[in-house]
Amino acid sequence: MSSIFTGQKLRLSIFGQSHSEAIGMTLDGLPAGLAVDLETLQAFLNRRAPGRNDWSTPRREEDRPEFLSGLKDGFTCGAPLTAIIRNTNTRGKDYAQLKVLPRPGHADYTAEVKYGGYQDYNGGGHFSGRLTAPLCIAGGIVLQELERRGITVMARIAAISGIWDDSPFLEPVGEKPFPVTDDAIASQMIEAIARARAEEDSVGGIIECQILGLPAGIGDPIFDGVENQIARLVFAVPAVKGIEFGAGFSSAEKRGSENNDAFCIKDGRIQTCTNHAGGILGGITNAMPVTFRAAIKPTPSIAKPQQSVNLQTGSEETLCITGRHDPCIVPRAVPVIEAAAAIAIYDLI
Amino acid sequence: MSSIFTGQKLRLSIFGQSHSEAIGMTLDGLPAGLAVDLETLQAFLNRRAPGRNDWSTPRREEDRPEFLSGLKDGFTCGAPLTAIIRNTNTRGKDYAQLKVLPRPGHADYTAEVKYGGYQDYNGGGHFSGRLTAPLCIAGGIVLQELERRGITVMARIAAISGIWDDSPFLEPVGEKPFPVTDDAIASQMIEAIARARAEEDSVGGIIECQILGLPAGIGDPIFDGVENQIARLVFAVPAVKGIEFGAGFSSAEKRGSENNDAFCIKDGRIQTCTNHAGGILGGITNAMPVTFRAAIKPTPSIAKPQQSVNLQTGSEETLCITGRHDPCIVPRAVPVIEAAAAIAIYDLI
Amino acid sequence: MSSIFTGQKLRLSIFGQSHSEAIGMTLDGLPAGLAVDLETLQAFLNRRAPGRNDWSTPRREEDRPEFLSGLKDGFTCGAPLTAIIRNTNTRGKDYAQLKVLPRPGHADYTAEVKYGGYQDYNGGGHFSGRLTAPLCIAGGIVLQELERRGITVMARIAAISGIWDDSPFLEPVGEKPFPVTDDAIASQMIEAIARARAEEDSVGGIIECQILGLPAGIGDPIFDGVENQIARLVFAVPAVKGIEFGAGFSSAEKRGSENNDAFCIKDGRIQTCTNHAGGILGGITNAMPVTFRAAIKPTPSIAKPQQSVNLQTGSEETLCITGRHDPCIVPRAVPVIEAAAAIAIYDLI
Amino acid sequence: MSSIFTGQKLRLSIFGQSHSEAIGMTLDGLPAGLAVDLETLQAFLNRRAPGRNDWSTPRREEDRPEFLSGLKDGFTCGAPLTAIIRNTNTRGKDYAQLKVLPRPGHADYTAEVKYGGYQDYNGGGHFSGRLTAPLCIAGGIVLQELERRGITVMARIAAISGIWDDSPFLEPVGEKPFPVTDDAIASQMIEAIARARAEEDSVGGIIECQILGLPAGIGDPIFDGVENQIARLVFAVPAVKGIEFGAGFSSAEKRGSENNDAFCIKDGRIQTCTNHAGGILGGITNAMPVTFRAAIKPTPSIAKPQQSVNLQTGSEETLCITGRHDPCIVPRAVPVIEAAAAIAIYDLI
Repeated sequence: MSSIFTGQKLRLSIFGQSHSEAIGMTLDGLPAGLAVDLETLQAFLNRRAPGRNDWSTPRREEDRPEFLSGLKDGFTCGAPLTAIIRNTNTRGKDYAQLKVLPRPGHADYTAEVKYGGYQDYNGGGHFSGRLTAPLCIAGGIVLQELERRGITVMARIAAISGIWDDSPFLEPVGEKPFPVTDDAIASQMIEAIARARAEEDSVGGIIECQILGLPAGIGDPIFDGVENQIARLVFAVPAVKGIEFGAGFSSAEKRGSENNDAFCIKDGRIQTCTNHAGGILGGITNAMPVTFRAAIKPTPSIAKPQQSVNLQTGSEETLCITGRHDPCIVPRAVPVIEAAAAIAIYDLI
Repeated sequence: MSSIFTGQKLRLSIFGQSHSEAIGMTLDGLPAGLAVDLETLQAFLNRRAPGRNDWSTPRREEDRPEFLSGLKDGFTCGAPLTAIIRNTNTRGKDYAQLKVLPRPGHADYTAEVKYGGYQDYNGGGHFSGRLTAPLCIAGGIVLQELERRGITVMARIAAISGIWDDSPFLEPVGEKPFPVTDDAIASQMIEAIARARAEEDSVGGIIECQILGLPAGIGDPIFDGVENQIARLVFAVPAVKGIEFGAGFSSAEKRGSENNDAFCIKDGRIQTCTNHAGGILGGITNAMPVTFRAAIKPTPSIAKPQQSVNLQTGSEETLCITGRHDPCIVPRAVPVIEAAAAIAIYDLI
Repeated sequence: MSSIFTGQKLRLSIFGQSHSEAIGMTLDGLPAGLAVDLETLQAFLNRRAPGRNDWSTPRREEDRPEFLSGLKDGFTCGAPLTAIIRNTNTRGKDYAQLKVLPRPGHADYTAEVKYGGYQDYNGGGHFSGRLTAPLCIAGGIVLQELERRGITVMARIAAISGIWDDSPFLEPVGEKPFPVTDDAIASQMIEAIARARAEEDSVGGIIECQILGLPAGIGDPIFDGVENQIARLVFAVPAVKGIEFGAGFSSAEKRGSENNDAFCIKDGRIQTCTNHAGGILGGITNAMPVTFRAAIKPTPSIAKPQQSVNLQTGSEETLCITGRHDPCIVPRAVPVIEAAAAIAIYDLI
Repeated sequence: MSSIFTGQKLRLSIFGQSHSEAIGMTLDGLPAGLAVDLETLQAFLNRRAPGRNDWSTPRREEDRPEFLSGLKDGFTCGAPLTAIIRNTNTRGKDYAQLKVLPRPGHADYTAEVKYGGYQDYNGGGHFSGRLTAPLCIAGGIVLQELERRGITVMARIAAISGIWDDSPFLEPVGEKPFPVTDDAIASQMIEAIARARAEEDSVGGIIECQILGLPAGIGDPIFDGVENQIARLVFAVPAVKGIEFGAGFSSAEKRGSENNDAFCIKDGRIQTCTNHAGGILGGITNAMPVTFRAAIKPTPSIAKPQQSVNLQTGSEETLCITGRHDPCIVPRAVPVIEAAAAIAIYDLI
């Protein structure tokens, strides 16, 4: 069991390998009659698509989903929604060596052990970041419905390689080619990425996400709280190594009197004066913005020579990765985090 | 849906409220024939139990589980395992005001909204930290089986209120009354807790956990990776606001060449030279220790006056919490994190 | 995995063995604020309880549930509902021989193989018909809510040992000590049971169930249709060996023109002229009564000597069962079928 | 939620509508390294495919699956297996009237209510019998693995329109164009179908299935027994209105002494002298053949005029169905029942 998310309302199945015939997704559990605007969806997918600028892989995929079922005249028809993206621009030969010489930081080795040599190692197979495209198809559709309900999910880059954008996160920045709030900071970040690329290296970063417009009372106790649910979906994004809600790790350094969010009356309704809880108390929303941050590790595929172990000979060898790779996937991961958050939240509403 | 964990092998149902007749758990999916040593289990539960020292609540509960089913002559019999703990030492009157004046940082308000006034607000009801006792019953049983298989789950306090124990984490410290590695640091931490208590306040901290002895190949891609699974269970512990695996948030500041764990041959088998991945690649174990840290917010119940809103009158009021509460629940949360991790891992093996 | 039903809204965990400390259930997923009338529930449970008349086992259990959690002042509070029934009237010695000499028609042998000798064989352990008591607690609570919504679930004995009650099933008969519509037929059935008992034998029968008041549109296609769901829950009742909806097996002998239910306008709304479909088309209700029949095999525990195999010596032996057993469990199974149907339906609404 | 089966090991998602771009399935949870012989699979699918003889619809679909993912060099690679079948031979115009004039015995009306007019009514949409093709893809793959493990799943027509084949079911008959054991009976059945067709009508029947070679100990108590599981999957086949295991409904007429299967030693191992239990005791296999029968209603699509109700005008009207339809789907349903049974059993092993 693995690649099917089983939520309270939704079931999301993600399938495909980096170099299989196609990748795709089936989303089951949406009510009939939801409008799906394919142009809006394509615009959302384009935010994730590779090959569009200096900081991403030159591999260019159209990432244009073909809907096989579940849509009729632009509306969901109640049947499961299935969409696929054909894999066209694949270069199998780039990956021939990875079967025996696993890339550090990748799933090559663990897949080899788990699947006993039967895994599809080309391009990372089912573990490829490419599998976040179907996640974005599902998320993009759900986001349209959340928008219609007055719920906004917006993510931005909070940090790249230790360079932080600390400016208040008040507006969506997803339409920007480099989605940070402060464009001066953006330039520094882009420079850091360019430097890493020049040195055949890569950098990571932190993505910050807010969900606005949620009513109080969403989520369930213990195993099905908003935190459990978002964490479960966000860790579906390869490269995520940590998540924190509200004040998160910094709350561990605070006193209770500082960290507790006092209740107050604002705009005629109950709110909290601060939002260290990230909008979640006891796993349940309190109508404040749900906020979280996800840590994205630096892309493991780097051109720099690295040490690996030859699985056939058992000896240590130097690996040089020659494929096309992003020096930093953080910008492209921003819509992916939005997609994951949207699915998590929609499922609980 | 809420308080039932549905894993690949296990189903864990947790029930009860702080002041209901009993709290308890049903664990389904264990094979028949597992030995359950009740003394070892009790010793494990005692690590979590309140009222045993200066830094925890004076409310004293025996926390002695009564097994209703599933055990026969000290072995699991294949039927679901159910155990309960009677709630004896309850003081309903302490909580009367919380129905209208929700405590900051607690689920009082969100439960009021979600359950439309029908929730059991006494002592936090189903949201009480007391519900971690049944989690520990389940986890304690699973831990015994993991031990028999050579798998060790060990957690310690990594930080309290910004005071860090950075010493290498090589040995279990769970038997210590204050589970840190460096006892000099322990004194500082205990002092910080005492100071907070004296000031009618509370402190939080960070718990670090390691799982040793796992083979490579555990976990599944995308939604059922080791990270998704552990996160889902660890966020079942109230007060956890963040989780990171391996280098976690700090990996976001590293270059790929630093963060990637090179493969090497050590002790005659394939290992990684470093363990920034926390033992997990592509959601799957690589036979290195699985490591993670969880951020625990400061106990929200503090004696200091706080601002809240009266839900009946709609006006802001000052709340003074008079019950018995821990100035720091981090030490008691250490076995709870072990329990959550054990259940997560056992389910995937 | 086994004894937890995972539905769309509900999770029902059933635990206990015939001779463990207690049997019980946890029902999770009910909204807060549902009234639970304990007297009505007890009256429902009494319909299933043993020891009340000539055709059931003389073992007398009070079957009085103790609620451990989830109820507050007579209403569900949002937390999981857990209730237990203590096992008091147990005679372990009756069952000592069953460990080596499995009873024909019982799970003694299959449990021995599955659980490798660790199963709790006393009284059938977790496979005992006694475990239908917790199913009735859950079902009885759900039935109260269905009633409030205008939905009636009513079952009756349709046949005992080949003696059929063919009279129209228009009224509930659950309150009758012997729940058939035609009391003259009841006498014949009771006589057939008495005859079987006198001959140290047992008889089976067929239970018919109707669910009235359902709107159209309940149920989902393919795997989660009303038929799949009811079947899944009704086969949780030991002794059920078949189920059919509407015309069921007899529809297989009909022409399409006979079996199809023509649509018509009656009482100002769309109905079908006949109801061979049992109220279900494509897995979804059509607002006609949902009707089904379940086949109940004759009680396998009979006093008559039977051939078995001694699992230790491997030789064939004669088994004489000396415990207390029902010559016919069909009357007591009537509320159990109602409970199973109620849970199935409530979960889909 | 609907069209995803969530088992203990397997997740099976079925998608598509009769006239959507494609129909298909994703099967998740198979281990890596299973051989999939595509020719054998195609031969299995051909047994279900329409348009091959007198008793099935003239609509001819190739039903040739295209594998999008999960297969590598003829073996499963651990990633989810997705296959689709393009819908090529669709005639949308045949179905235009069904939107307002629902066909008796079909899901047209219930889908209209459930999906509020957004359903894809063409050809029955997601409720079409065509959706059993993806079920057969999944089942056909699982059957290959079961065969390798020495487990045989074989179904036959037991009855058509009241004409029974009572001959012993000892050999597979799936390769026959008309899968009954006794070919003389086959002729009578074929004649009955021809007669129904000539009269613009249809007939139903009963399919009998055996699963041979199972060890004892498969299945779980209460909700996850073999009966629950098979029933849940077999009712996924449209047109199934009843299921019975072993002696099934006829056991309800027997005495316990007749119905109980005495244990005996045969061929050096424990067996039962008879098999009224259909190989299942307490939900768990006893190593005897698992046997069940499923009732298939007559095809609801008949050319004969039928009464329906115009959903727009609310008045009763006569409906004449002009499309291409099977006068009897029982022969084509035989491999579908095998597929459902295979998936059910494989999931529990």
